[in-house]
Amino acid sequence: MTEDVLTPLIRHVALSNLNQAYADSLDLGDLASWQGCFTPDGLYKAQGRENFDRGLPLAAILCDGKGMFQDRVSVISRIMVYAPRSLRHVVGAPRIISASGELIRARASFSIFHTLPHEPTALLSVGRYEDEVLANGAGEMRFRSRVAVYDSLLIPNSLVYPL
Amino acid sequence: MTEDVLTPLIRHVALSNLNQAYADSLDLGDLASWQGCFTPDGLYKAQGRENFDRGLPLAAILCDGKGMFQDRVSVISRIMVYAPRSLRHVVGAPRIISASGELIRARASFSIFHTLPHEPTALLSVGRYEDEVLANGAGEMRFRSRVAVYDSLLIPNSLVYPL
Amino acid sequence: MTEDVLTPLIRHVALSNLNQAYADSLDLGDLASWQGCFTPDGLYKAQGRENFDRGLPLAAILCDGKGMFQDRVSVISRIMVYAPRSLRHVVGAPRIISASGELIRARASFSIFHTLPHEPTALLSVGRYEDEVLANGAGEMRFRSRVAVYDSLLIPNSLVYPL
Repeated sequence: MTEDVLTPLIRHVALSNLNQAYADSLDLGDLASWQGCFTPDGLYKAQGRENFDRGLPLAAILCDGKGMFQDRVSVISRIMVYAPRSLRHVVGAPRIISASGELIRARASFSIFHTLPHEPTALLSVGRYEDEVLANGAGEMRFRSRVAVYDSLLIPNSLVYPL
Repeated sequence: MTEDVLTPLIRHVALSNLNQAYADSLDLGDLASWQGCFTPDGLYKAQGRENFDRGLPLAAILCDGKGMFQDRVSVISRIMVYAPRSLRHVVGAPRIISASGELIRARASFSIFHTLPHEPTALLSVGRYEDEVLANGAGEMRFRSRVAVYDSLLIPNSLVYPL
Repeated sequence: MTEDVLTPLIRHVALSNLNQAYADSLDLGDLASWQGCFTPDGLYKAQGRENFDRGLPLAAILCDGKGMFQDRVSVISRIMVYAPRSLRHVVGAPRIISASGELIRARASFSIFHTLPHEPTALLSVGRYEDEVLANGAGEMRFRSRVAVYDSLLIPNSLVYPL
């Protein structure tokens, strides 16, 4: 019975930690850690709200499988050299939508700010993450799928960094 | 003794889930779910900081009882047709101020962004929620009262949507 | 064994509560409570990202020990009279970086908005807190050290309030 009470608490904290690990990776520019937040066959997508809600495939960024993640990481690494900018994710608490077996579906709201050298910080994007998360034996969670659904089609810069 | 340790954890996660369910309802435009976050005799108010701090009654939005909630829901539904905009709530963690019997008083900071079609996302409002929350037998929480205390009297658009 | 499962949950909630108590203190203008979030020999620093990352000592605000905290509190109290402004902290979930013995190292992302009378709310600063936290016997946590690392060197007003 204690187990039943504990499960939602453990999941909440584990999901919160995964969300923060993801945000930290991007905000600290640690792209290997970013990729490490996903399962080996994981999927990442950044998609506008309209396209997501209508089930359309069009996405600003798509990483499906290891090769596409590594391509994205090397593109970003090059861009960080000639156009450095720092990101800041402020993410709301995770909300579990459903949990069946090992798969958890969850959602979280995000606000992302960016700062260019010698400029004031500005709002980059807001939206929600729609996640499918798997826990391994040690209770650590990874994204099998994360879709960053952004609210505005207008994003100050062409989208290079994942949201 | 384990029970004593668990109670604050259970409350924290239940409050967090209620806050996110509330935010999701408004961000997804699901107004029935928004109303469902309140007890049947629940109260919602959006009030400027000065008025709240001085205990003045003036409020930009007041829903006290089922009828006023339904009026608000139908006003919003009409407005969403001719002036669609999407909201995004990014809410800080809940903080329990006091708990006596079944009644919990809690607070959370909010930032709310809005996006009109073909426009970039902008900041709508920031402030704090001052909440009175009741748990039912199943441990699910509902607002008996939520006051959204916004920091600026100047809000880009006349306040139609709840904060 | 239950103890092992519970410890990270208890820490997560206690850290979250400390972060919100800190934010509430500043947002409500309760500077005694702000000081009370630190241990008696606690340290607070607001430092730009570049300086922090390079280990440079230059900091916009430094409070090291009781006397410096009280100096800062009295400066702020005077400024609040002739230039009132309200702050709003929206802080992401805490992430524990390491825990050894009683000392916990943790991180959290922050966004801070400010509102002057008769003006719309604006973004003041974003960044991350790098914290060293100690729990007392009652399980209450205090900052032994909090460094607010802000992303932009350009801050709309000279930094008077702690971030």
